[in-house]
Amino acid sequence: MTIEVYWGSGSPYAWRVLLTLEAKKIPYVSHLIEFSKKEHKTPDFLALNPRGKVPTIKDGDYALGESLAIMAYLDRKYPEVPLFGQSAEETGRVWKAISEQVSYLEPAGFRVIVPFFVGTVEDNAEDIRDAAAEVREELALMERLIGEQRWFALGKLTAADLAVYPFIETLLRVAGKEDAKPFDLGLLPFASRYPAMEAWRQRIRALPGYDKTYPPHWR
Amino acid sequence: MTIEVYWGSGSPYAWRVLLTLEAKKIPYVSHLIEFSKKEHKTPDFLALNPRGKVPTIKDGDYALGESLAIMAYLDRKYPEVPLFGQSAEETGRVWKAISEQVSYLEPAGFRVIVPFFVGTVEDNAEDIRDAAAEVREELALMERLIGEQRWFALGKLTAADLAVYPFIETLLRVAGKEDAKPFDLGLLPFASRYPAMEAWRQRIRALPGYDKTYPPHWR
Repeated sequence: MTIEVYWGSGSPYAWRVLLTLEAKKIPYVSHLIEFSKKEHKTPDFLALNPRGKVPTIKDGDYALGESLAIMAYLDRKYPEVPLFGQSAEETGRVWKAISEQVSYLEPAGFRVIVPFFVGTVEDNAEDIRDAAAEVREELALMERLIGEQRWFALGKLTAADLAVYPFIETLLRVAGKEDAKPFDLGLLPFASRYPAMEAWRQRIRALPGYDKTYPPHWR
Repeated sequence: MTIEVYWGSGSPYAWRVLLTLEAKKIPYVSHLIEFSKKEHKTPDFLALNPRGKVPTIKDGDYALGESLAIMAYLDRKYPEVPLFGQSAEETGRVWKAISEQVSYLEPAGFRVIVPFFVGTVEDNAEDIRDAAAEVREELALMERLIGEQRWFALGKLTAADLAVYPFIETLLRVAGKEDAKPFDLGLLPFASRYPAMEAWRQRIRALPGYDKTYPPHWR
């Protein structure tokens, strides 16, 4: 019974799950959902996930949505390569890093990202600059942590790294767009501004199976 | 070595942790932080949590912030009364319910709540109405789930119930304010609109120790 994974190209949430499956070396069948064809709104897919969202997995009769929930499920079902810590103290630190990403980095980051995707940059120019400053504060904290311990939550790869990595890539992809350049978001060149995080990105890219997780339409 | 808990009256995030400690019958020393006295910005407190936020716990030498992280830590350290499920499948469902709260209910709910707290209701009237409609959609899903299984994520009390309950109470408190009445948020009277959730609220209020967790300034 192989796990089936429904994902979409460029969804940072779906990317988390692919990275988790690769890190844990869990075999899976990949279903790339084409949003443009509304494949996430078909009756079959809605039966798996009534919200019509990716990522969604199917493991035998068990279907589950929401990336962090899927990661927690996989870690408990397939404990090899533990990603949520091996003690209560470690578990606390992993979820703290994830919670801080969800509560502080993502809300600020989406205020930067979304206007470039939906074409509302001019109306949101001031907010983009304010949000970029918040993003830089969070990145500065991450830069210090990763500089000290090589990884985000603990001195080893955890779910916190795999959860935040796709979001960082999405942010940097937006920062590199032509229409983002006038904003001087303060993110690029990333390697000179955040050298410890750049080394961490390289470590993640060197993980076995990484290439299979990379968003196809980004190539 | 008793756990020390730093919390603030009316913080839904801090309330989650108090409910968790009571549900698991873990003894704790309570430190009620007075935000008006900037007690969350003292050097001693910032040493425990550099973000200066509640809830924060101290368990021996171990300090931790972020409510969901604290709940995950407590569940692993004190496994009696398991709150995050007893199988991978259950764990997945608990985190899914929590993730959906974080991703859908809270963002919409805060768009309703915050303007009433910060006094920007007039400027946000349209958005408050839009957000209230989103809140009602999420509540309708919860009403159905809780009607079927009595609790939010599984057929028993879990972390998902304790995580969402304080937010629901905060929302209903705002809905009951005099200046919220013209908005017809569609939440009150709660018992007739969401009878299964109302029964669930009563079950949570009947949990041993509940009274000790209730925000003092709400009495």
